[in-house]
Amino acid sequence: MGILIKNSTIITQNEGREVLRGDVLIEGSRIEKVAKRIQEKAEFILDGNGKLLLPGFVNAHTHVAMTLLRGYADDMELDEWLNKKIRPLEKKMRESDVRAGSLLGCAEMIRGGTTSFNDMYFFMPHVAKAVEESGMRALLAYGMVEGGDEEKGRMEVKIGEEFVRKFNGKAGGRIRCAFGPHAPYACSSSLLKKIDGLSKKYKVPIHSHISETRKEVFDMLKKERKRPVEYLEHINFLSKRLIAAHCGWITKREVKILAERKVSVAHCPVSNMKLAVGGVSPIPEMLEEGVNVSLGTDGSASNNSLSMLETMKMCSLLQKHQRWDPTSINAQQALDFATRNGAKALGINAGSIEKGKLADIILIDAKAPNMAPLHNPISQLVYSANAGNVTDVIIDGKIVMRERKIQTIDEEKVVEEAQKAAIDLVNR
Amino acid sequence: MGILIKNSTIITQNEGREVLRGDVLIEGSRIEKVAKRIQEKAEFILDGNGKLLLPGFVNAHTHVAMTLLRGYADDMELDEWLNKKIRPLEKKMRESDVRAGSLLGCAEMIRGGTTSFNDMYFFMPHVAKAVEESGMRALLAYGMVEGGDEEKGRMEVKIGEEFVRKFNGKAGGRIRCAFGPHAPYACSSSLLKKIDGLSKKYKVPIHSHISETRKEVFDMLKKERKRPVEYLEHINFLSKRLIAAHCGWITKREVKILAERKVSVAHCPVSNMKLAVGGVSPIPEMLEEGVNVSLGTDGSASNNSLSMLETMKMCSLLQKHQRWDPTSINAQQALDFATRNGAKALGINAGSIEKGKLADIILIDAKAPNMAPLHNPISQLVYSANAGNVTDVIIDGKIVMRERKIQTIDEEKVVEEAQKAAIDLVNR
Repeated sequence: MGILIKNSTIITQNEGREVLRGDVLIEGSRIEKVAKRIQEKAEFILDGNGKLLLPGFVNAHTHVAMTLLRGYADDMELDEWLNKKIRPLEKKMRESDVRAGSLLGCAEMIRGGTTSFNDMYFFMPHVAKAVEESGMRALLAYGMVEGGDEEKGRMEVKIGEEFVRKFNGKAGGRIRCAFGPHAPYACSSSLLKKIDGLSKKYKVPIHSHISETRKEVFDMLKKERKRPVEYLEHINFLSKRLIAAHCGWITKREVKILAERKVSVAHCPVSNMKLAVGGVSPIPEMLEEGVNVSLGTDGSASNNSLSMLETMKMCSLLQKHQRWDPTSINAQQALDFATRNGAKALGINAGSIEKGKLADIILIDAKAPNMAPLHNPISQLVYSANAGNVTDVIIDGKIVMRERKIQTIDEEKVVEEAQKAAIDLVNR
Repeated sequence: MGILIKNSTIITQNEGREVLRGDVLIEGSRIEKVAKRIQEKAEFILDGNGKLLLPGFVNAHTHVAMTLLRGYADDMELDEWLNKKIRPLEKKMRESDVRAGSLLGCAEMIRGGTTSFNDMYFFMPHVAKAVEESGMRALLAYGMVEGGDEEKGRMEVKIGEEFVRKFNGKAGGRIRCAFGPHAPYACSSSLLKKIDGLSKKYKVPIHSHISETRKEVFDMLKKERKRPVEYLEHINFLSKRLIAAHCGWITKREVKILAERKVSVAHCPVSNMKLAVGGVSPIPEMLEEGVNVSLGTDGSASNNSLSMLETMKMCSLLQKHQRWDPTSINAQQALDFATRNGAKALGINAGSIEKGKLADIILIDAKAPNMAPLHNPISQLVYSANAGNVTDVIIDGKIVMRERKIQTIDEEKVVEEAQKAAIDLVNR
């Protein structure tokens, strides 16, 4: 039974990066078969003709509830933006705001072909609820900030641990949890060590911001006489359980350490450019050393979009531009970051179209004018496609969007409620 | 009579950059009235509720027929890309290929909210035909390359002049022509002077590539002991009739000269980043000196998209990134470049929603999840919107796209024919 998608151009993203024309059969939450022609009967048959079929995108770093703040403050200095506009509004946010913003962000991500995301914020049970309702897959972490207050640190860990205990594995396994120490500068070494222990105990990942800005690197050098990655290595915090967002201001020596410790990096080119952090993640050096590079949009307050299609293009263009080298980060590499590598970072058995993988699959209209002619489908995906080209989204074997209509949540209502919540929040 | 658009959020782009909720009445090819409530009867009434209404985008530098080559060659060194992949294919191109590529590009631009474009290529009568059929507005130039061959230069001018004579003012005035000397390095000073004279004679603009790459600047310094803009000033070629594409490698002194001569610049951030030319147009310095800055996508072989929404965002982000200054080029400035300034560059009486202006108007879905909440419509337009959010396009007072369906050309057929032409061209 299950779902059979016929006659699409399948961008498998398998080991050999095969592109083939054929059919894909889904049984339950997994891909059962990929072949030129599948004869088996199925409950639903989707016509994939004229469409590209590929693994859904994995957004490896975001704060989905911040979608509620999109466009509230732009074109400002990072400190002013964060401390005078974003943080004061966040302090007034209620659980219902986090829910409204998360549902809005999920709707946007589904429309853009994102099937999984890696999130860090507060009121996380309400983010989890949005994930459950929308049908998405996510790795969720409560963002812990100690800020030199040990008592606060203990409370933060308590909230984070409770969230992991209650929500890890929920929504039929679509929700997994992580620990989210905000950043090395926001947590003491003893807190970080405690978190690392909890991550081992619960067998869940850690999600943190590392070396996003030049300031945090210089502050750490002053305080610890080490750069952030060197410091984290020194306190024995680095492991393959860590997803390190940004890593824009790191040295070659730090790249080597990340590779040795098998840390996954979530590079956020659009947010980095918009906030003008200046640093550019040394992606080619990371690849050379064998670091698992994934891509994130960051929150919508600093992007202001959750489009992974845009992020793939900007990842490639930023490296080309920065290095005066148009051969740097080709389309296939950018697509790998957003699919295979993202799934690996989050510990999800997805990211390619192969038997046994989770059925997180998207279809893209290859006959839209902006996608033609189809000299090279990978190039069209990375350099030409936009979110409007995504037609169908399947997550965990369920049809979440069909012919551009989201099936799981009432999109109109989600937008209306987010709009109301946003106005109320600003006027509160 | 005419068209009445009710109840939209009007981003007027007028002198005061007013945003107001209300109605717009179109009579013939022009805007007749903009007001909170219009009672006049009209032939067509469009419900603009939940939509942003704004001037259509002006793509100030492209080669629309190159849409046929989109994705054919990427991630290569500029010289190799141009001389080993693009030029050999262009040599095999036929008139029917230029027509197919142009129609495809027009369909994509309409879908992305672009109402006018500034083009330079060959077999230009076939580009003109695509403009006429699609309902778009364009400034078209035959691209002239002399390459040290005086006889060839004379032939090129002949073709260019004949095109201007035959096509300027066609399609009810939607087509205007320009002279297109490819670049200062491709034409002798005597040819450039001749072209300047013809531009005066026919009262039409000049469209040229200026200082796109570092190499052309150093070659010019070697040959003429002057940088390109200084050289063009020296031979008295600069005037308000000139639209200078790129200007990525220019000095502050050259910015001053461009301002004094009232030259319009067409900045192409996405193409510049993708080809890794390294130089970044000094936009804040241009604004300070009073240069008219507009935006272009460049051709789809080097972008690979004709989306002006993407180009606005990248224009802002590239300046922020390059200068470590998140306040550089705000959303309103980027929108100005893509509307008011573009219209000024091309000499079109459009670019704002005001009585008497040409009715080149687009509607954008403000209730799509990626556009909510609407804290700031300008920010959402520039940083969050994608081509899929454009719902309706009116050009010269005619409805060219209605609820995402193009009215003027058979989109499916256009895509199919472009696909066929592309395959045939590559295999020729």
